[in-house]
Amino acid sequence: MPSYKLTYFPVKALAEPIRFILSYGGVEFEDDRFDRNDWPKIKPTMPFGQVPVLEIDGKKVNQSTAICRYLAKQHGLAGKDDWENLEIDVAVDNIHDLRSKIGAYHYESHPEAKEAKREPLMKELLPFALDRLDEQVKKNGGYFVGGKLTWADMVFVALLDYLNFMTKFDITEKHENLKALKEKVLALPKIKAWVEKRPQTEC
Amino acid sequence: MPSYKLTYFPVKALAEPIRFILSYGGVEFEDDRFDRNDWPKIKPTMPFGQVPVLEIDGKKVNQSTAICRYLAKQHGLAGKDDWENLEIDVAVDNIHDLRSKIGAYHYESHPEAKEAKREPLMKELLPFALDRLDEQVKKNGGYFVGGKLTWADMVFVALLDYLNFMTKFDITEKHENLKALKEKVLALPKIKAWVEKRPQTEC
Repeated sequence: MPSYKLTYFPVKALAEPIRFILSYGGVEFEDDRFDRNDWPKIKPTMPFGQVPVLEIDGKKVNQSTAICRYLAKQHGLAGKDDWENLEIDVAVDNIHDLRSKIGAYHYESHPEAKEAKREPLMKELLPFALDRLDEQVKKNGGYFVGGKLTWADMVFVALLDYLNFMTKFDITEKHENLKALKEKVLALPKIKAWVEKRPQTEC
Repeated sequence: MPSYKLTYFPVKALAEPIRFILSYGGVEFEDDRFDRNDWPKIKPTMPFGQVPVLEIDGKKVNQSTAICRYLAKQHGLAGKDDWENLEIDVAVDNIHDLRSKIGAYHYESHPEAKEAKREPLMKELLPFALDRLDEQVKKNGGYFVGGKLTWADMVFVALLDYLNFMTKFDITEKHENLKALKEKVLALPKIKAWVEKRPQTEC
């Protein structure tokens, strides 16, 4: 088995889907969490100046979604054919689009501009997107795609603490299918074991 | 061959990589460009309230990158193995990360917040990212991955007019490897034919 070293800030956020998939696959990995003060020194050593970065046998790879897709193929979390993989990719990118819009609000440093982003996000975008995601899980037998566990479910559940941290409420609370999916994924023995042993962080 | 209908605003932007790959594959498609005034009416009929959407035999699929990956597999633009596909996915997401940061500046509606985003983008982020992308193309024999044409090259070149529209300058002008890649892709006979026949739009 290749050696894996995952480098990121000391949080869940974008690294957590990778940690979930590696844990689900029963893969040992070095969980390298650096101090935020060291970031300016680390940044230029990273392939695109960003983290998370997964070193696979010493080769540094960035982009969490690309990494998840690669790992998912090896651990039985990909689709059964090109069409299912397309559906999984769409679900994952829809989830990340939502994450990115929540992030555009959360990380906006100009107070007035931030305030202007709040209502469109909280009143329109978020309810619309959550309704669509919930409906998709309902239609697909409790999972995002194909009535079975795929890496799209891992990405969604692993990102939840980060999303909830940014929105300041539990985004699954009014969406029973998303909530049930979360509980189901967190009850998987290997995910449960990971969640119990991981460092406790807010997001 | 399946039937394809591509629905988008009357611009290149996020739909153009799909149009490039379909054109490269010699695939006929309906290029449905709607009037911006009709968007509020169209939006709720789209799977995630977003476009571009490609209808494949009547099935509506959103998320341009997922669509490109799916089409690339069918038209010889994917990698030769999982590792090459990982490298392609990373390149594509790096390109879209850059696009998204340029967009965060371009679409910011609060004038002061927009001004605050300008310098970090123009002086740091953009030069850093373009240097890394240019270096990658140089190292890989004139393409993003594996010394041969893949859908990562298609995505980059197809997005250029949109990126340049938002930055207000030609982002390849000081990066000779990116510039050479652009010229090479635009010289492919099927891409050349598409570019000649497509509607002329600014972005």
